[in-house]
Amino acid sequence: MRALVWDGQALAVADRPALRPRDGLARLRVSLAGICSTDLQLFRGYMGFTGVPGHELVGVVEEGPAHLVGRRVTGEINLACGRCDLCGRGLGRHCPTRTVLGILGADGALAEEVLLPPANLHLVPDEVPDEAAVFTEPLAAAFEVLEQVHVRPGTAAIVLGDGKLGLLVAQVLHGAGARVLAVGRHAGKLNVLARRGIPTLLAADAEAEHLEKVDLVVEATGSEAGLARAIALVRPRGTLVLKSTVAAKHALNLAPLVIDEITVVGSRCGPFPPALSALARGAVDVASLVERVYPLADGLAAVAHAGRAGALKVLVRPWT
Amino acid sequence: MRALVWDGQALAVADRPALRPRDGLARLRVSLAGICSTDLQLFRGYMGFTGVPGHELVGVVEEGPAHLVGRRVTGEINLACGRCDLCGRGLGRHCPTRTVLGILGADGALAEEVLLPPANLHLVPDEVPDEAAVFTEPLAAAFEVLEQVHVRPGTAAIVLGDGKLGLLVAQVLHGAGARVLAVGRHAGKLNVLARRGIPTLLAADAEAEHLEKVDLVVEATGSEAGLARAIALVRPRGTLVLKSTVAAKHALNLAPLVIDEITVVGSRCGPFPPALSALARGAVDVASLVERVYPLADGLAAVAHAGRAGALKVLVRPWT
Repeated sequence: MRALVWDGQALAVADRPALRPRDGLARLRVSLAGICSTDLQLFRGYMGFTGVPGHELVGVVEEGPAHLVGRRVTGEINLACGRCDLCGRGLGRHCPTRTVLGILGADGALAEEVLLPPANLHLVPDEVPDEAAVFTEPLAAAFEVLEQVHVRPGTAAIVLGDGKLGLLVAQVLHGAGARVLAVGRHAGKLNVLARRGIPTLLAADAEAEHLEKVDLVVEATGSEAGLARAIALVRPRGTLVLKSTVAAKHALNLAPLVIDEITVVGSRCGPFPPALSALARGAVDVASLVERVYPLADGLAAVAHAGRAGALKVLVRPWT
Repeated sequence: MRALVWDGQALAVADRPALRPRDGLARLRVSLAGICSTDLQLFRGYMGFTGVPGHELVGVVEEGPAHLVGRRVTGEINLACGRCDLCGRGLGRHCPTRTVLGILGADGALAEEVLLPPANLHLVPDEVPDEAAVFTEPLAAAFEVLEQVHVRPGTAAIVLGDGKLGLLVAQVLHGAGARVLAVGRHAGKLNVLARRGIPTLLAADAEAEHLEKVDLVVEATGSEAGLARAIALVRPRGTLVLKSTVAAKHALNLAPLVIDEITVVGSRCGPFPPALSALARGAVDVASLVERVYPLADGLAAVAHAGRAGALKVLVRPWT
């Protein structure tokens, strides 16, 4: 089969051996796969990954349990052991011996086919087109904030960053009834939110204005500079959610965290069911986040496009 | 009256004008006051404080509301406006225009007398001697962890640091049913905990041993180096409580926080009632924490003693 392959040095579209399901894995024909900022970091050495990247997908089961064959699915990306203490607590996404699809020890979905455990698969409702279903994984990461933080109707929140994840988090918090202000660098992207009634502010204006401190700040800029600024926007006893895995050292004075008793919550992968439900209800606009769809043969151009400053979601269609 | 006075340059025992209660404040005759690590930081410039330090006290009300005059009390140290949004939410300890006894804009208790709002005063139960009651404030800071984090019976916890606050936090968590391991640098101090059935480990051994990750880590070393080590001891989805206001920049890689979805909670002042209740029940050993009691006339020697490496609690008795 054809796949995008990162060998640790270079990226190529290459032929790989046909996938043979083993250990009860299901084989999916990939309909669409997304390129995520994490993928771009992998190509700079993050996680020491080599193999087929890609962890945002929608596809059709071709081999696997009878009740799933022929069904349209998306898949959770953490491949847990199912037997350890953390798995036993329902924290398989944190299983210490997990592999992670297209990120850590498991080939991913930027390919014609991909293998996933049946337990990781979620049926895609008929009313959700492939172009929306492929957002299930990043949208689940946005919903993770609601799993971790008690967002009440009226909770005052600021989302920093108008990248793909920031735009999803802002919509999820808005849907949960929070009073959201989204701060970003791109008027065009913020406009996706403005169209849904979410107040927005350009970052330059946010720095000039005196913003009132809020209950909840979500840092989704992925920039190193943003952290101290994010802390300064949290009210005493409020919460700062970190939604970025940018692996860089931050020089941080922690005294303000202690004096204002701020809670900092690291946040990564999230639950698929609320994401699929939101897509089925049309509660989140993901169509506006699609920048372009490339065939797999143009995978290198797709990655280059995804890496452009300000790019929104670039999708890859393996079968054309 | 006599008081310990920090003028921004030097510390002295000096005469100050007699205190005249204004704005409804109560006047206390101070029976005992404690010296805290925060005081030592003030004398290095922290908060830009000048005046009378001291925020750990027990005393007798000499002037104030009739029902309090003659009563033995301790006092909360955050002097809130009582009218702002945060005060309205019961977060007076975070009132943005607050003063803080002996720390920020208000003369403190290392003096013969001190002024406090009656609302800040708590009656000391008869069964609690002055030498224990003077620990109410730091013990309340230890109880703050239980306000902020859901500690269940059996919660696995590590307390890093065997300073005064670390020894109190370890006892409070133990009392709440957590399985506590206390890690410190002083066998003698750890022994205070061992006598109460709390497992302890010398820091050098902790670094050599492979410690299992736990649900809750409390960082109370106040050292700059400890933070990354503390994070490494928190299990995925676990909690790290920061109990130190050491104002220093930490170079910190935040990716582990995000990947393991760790929650970091800044923690400062706490509630007095559970602290007084614990002292009344004898549930916490504070007597073993008293290193020495000095008369106020020897205030400089008392501060020098409190600053010695490994010193436990140094108390000052203003009237002798």
